[in-house]
Amino acid sequence: MNDNHLVIMAGGIGSRFWPLSTPTVPKQFIDIMGVGKTLIQLTADRFADFIPAENVWIVTSKGYKDLVRKQLPEVPESNILLEPCMRNTAPCIAYVSWKIKKKHPNANIVVSPADHIVLKADEFKRVISKGLEFTASSANILTLGIQPSRPETGYGYIKRMSEVVVPEIFKVDSFKEKPDLAKAQTYVEEGVYLWNAGIFLWNVNTIEAAFRQCEPQMSAIFDKLANDFYTEKEQDSIDTHFPTCKAISIDYAIMEHAENIYVFPSDLGWSDVGTWGSLYELSTKDEDQNVVLSDNCRVIECKNCMTHVSDKTKIVVQGLDNCIIAENNGVFLICKKDQEQRIKEFSQLS
Amino acid sequence: MNDNHLVIMAGGIGSRFWPLSTPTVPKQFIDIMGVGKTLIQLTADRFADFIPAENVWIVTSKGYKDLVRKQLPEVPESNILLEPCMRNTAPCIAYVSWKIKKKHPNANIVVSPADHIVLKADEFKRVISKGLEFTASSANILTLGIQPSRPETGYGYIKRMSEVVVPEIFKVDSFKEKPDLAKAQTYVEEGVYLWNAGIFLWNVNTIEAAFRQCEPQMSAIFDKLANDFYTEKEQDSIDTHFPTCKAISIDYAIMEHAENIYVFPSDLGWSDVGTWGSLYELSTKDEDQNVVLSDNCRVIECKNCMTHVSDKTKIVVQGLDNCIIAENNGVFLICKKDQEQRIKEFSQLS
Repeated sequence: MNDNHLVIMAGGIGSRFWPLSTPTVPKQFIDIMGVGKTLIQLTADRFADFIPAENVWIVTSKGYKDLVRKQLPEVPESNILLEPCMRNTAPCIAYVSWKIKKKHPNANIVVSPADHIVLKADEFKRVISKGLEFTASSANILTLGIQPSRPETGYGYIKRMSEVVVPEIFKVDSFKEKPDLAKAQTYVEEGVYLWNAGIFLWNVNTIEAAFRQCEPQMSAIFDKLANDFYTEKEQDSIDTHFPTCKAISIDYAIMEHAENIYVFPSDLGWSDVGTWGSLYELSTKDEDQNVVLSDNCRVIECKNCMTHVSDKTKIVVQGLDNCIIAENNGVFLICKKDQEQRIKEFSQLS
Repeated sequence: MNDNHLVIMAGGIGSRFWPLSTPTVPKQFIDIMGVGKTLIQLTADRFADFIPAENVWIVTSKGYKDLVRKQLPEVPESNILLEPCMRNTAPCIAYVSWKIKKKHPNANIVVSPADHIVLKADEFKRVISKGLEFTASSANILTLGIQPSRPETGYGYIKRMSEVVVPEIFKVDSFKEKPDLAKAQTYVEEGVYLWNAGIFLWNVNTIEAAFRQCEPQMSAIFDKLANDFYTEKEQDSIDTHFPTCKAISIDYAIMEHAENIYVFPSDLGWSDVGTWGSLYELSTKDEDQNVVLSDNCRVIECKNCMTHVSDKTKIVVQGLDNCIIAENNGVFLICKKDQEQRIKEFSQLS
């Protein structure tokens, strides 16, 4: 029996991709790459070869249930866990871990965000498979660490120890917050710092033990809730008690305190696609360095632009340089690429 | 009895305002000024004080009948004349003249394009009223000549004679095609050249006589067709015989040959709104010289731009200079303002 499980965390709101991403249909449910699949579909695809659909679990907000059902019809409805409110990643992971454990007491779990991109699918598969073997045979937590290609200030970093523990896997020295540029440059030079991709692997008993040690209060909440899992009372109980969990990330709650954390440095063509700029970097460019992510967009005499419009829109753009041109549902943004950090401000004007 | 009549020529397709203007809903049926009224509504409004609705006649293409009915509900349905095909202005004017004459044998007529703009409404009313008096009391054709404010190469010109005939009215020396810039500059300097606004005034008997003299063949066609006017057979007969008229403008057919042509030089704030550039010139600008013709458009750190999007679209534009940003029905154009002569090329790309 395949006891490997995939948890996709799909509760984010992706506000930095407005107007494509909106609170109603956020980034993970959008074909942001212009490839014909949404980010959550691409995420599920990445694991489809080695984790069966009945072992795929989605944790998302109540409002996104229909989107998940529509975009991932192969995932059983009972595997879609609905948070009544946002409480960051730790309560989300506790909920799904307690739920999986009730039916699969020895499950090996890989946890992945719904809205990241991995370009090197084969290497990803190799790394995850090897990682799942590691967590199946040891009571350790494994994270993926991405070899940094630049002094990125938008990601957290993982500092690894020097000695290899098993081939390719290292013990974690410490987790580091998003650094400033100077610190990021040092990290890249020192060679033992990796980007924290937010992808975690563990046996369900390992993460449960970590929660019991680091978050006893939260563990007690889910111990009680577990009585109602897989019954008609589950959603009501979750709606009542999930909001009593404190909002805290898995990094703060567990990773920075537990001792048994390991990292698998990997080169995956990974990106969190966190900004228009990162999408631009990831995407194929034409000879004038334009990224055109929609068939119904014509770009003439433009340079360094990126366009992403919906199927309902036709657009001709002439003579622009260094611009983002994005449309979703009749809401349009045209701005200079270097102003994308102001997208929240722009979205409030529309 | 008020025997003054207004003919609005509304058959154009306004291709230079794509994507706002399309063959399905061309420029004259669009609120291109962003004032809450379409150009044909503004045109009808300009005459509403002194020409009753039952004396307003619209000549348009068959495909635009519903648009006219909807936008000018006060005009009787039987006053809407439908051309089965485009034959330029002379057959259009012959048709409506023969038809008006059959019921109103002494009608005084002013002919106006549907898609021009006049900013000085009071002066326009004074000029037209005085012009109608002139054509009611003489067998002369009167045109409006606009005092040129710049050496415009996009308009035809009217050269007037020097001596005033009746106060403010001059005999026409000749009509001039659209000049090149050097010639246009000479025209403006010489002081006796006026822009041809395509607005004509005449008694129905005067224009009939001019047609009989200059276009006997076309006159014969409408003599025969007139038997069916105001009967159920009218449209069928028009559909059969109107296409046999040659395609020719009223300027070529009549104005350049007839002897009894006069001009009323006037300062009306007139424009044919022929291009995005002329709309930009006409419109109120913000402090950064932007023209924003839609409430649902926010312009930040832009200069010399003009925006015109439909009610269904919301748009935020940041950091552009000298651009046209236009949307209609999900079709979008963004281009540099100085490239607007390429709009046909752009429209063919979408």
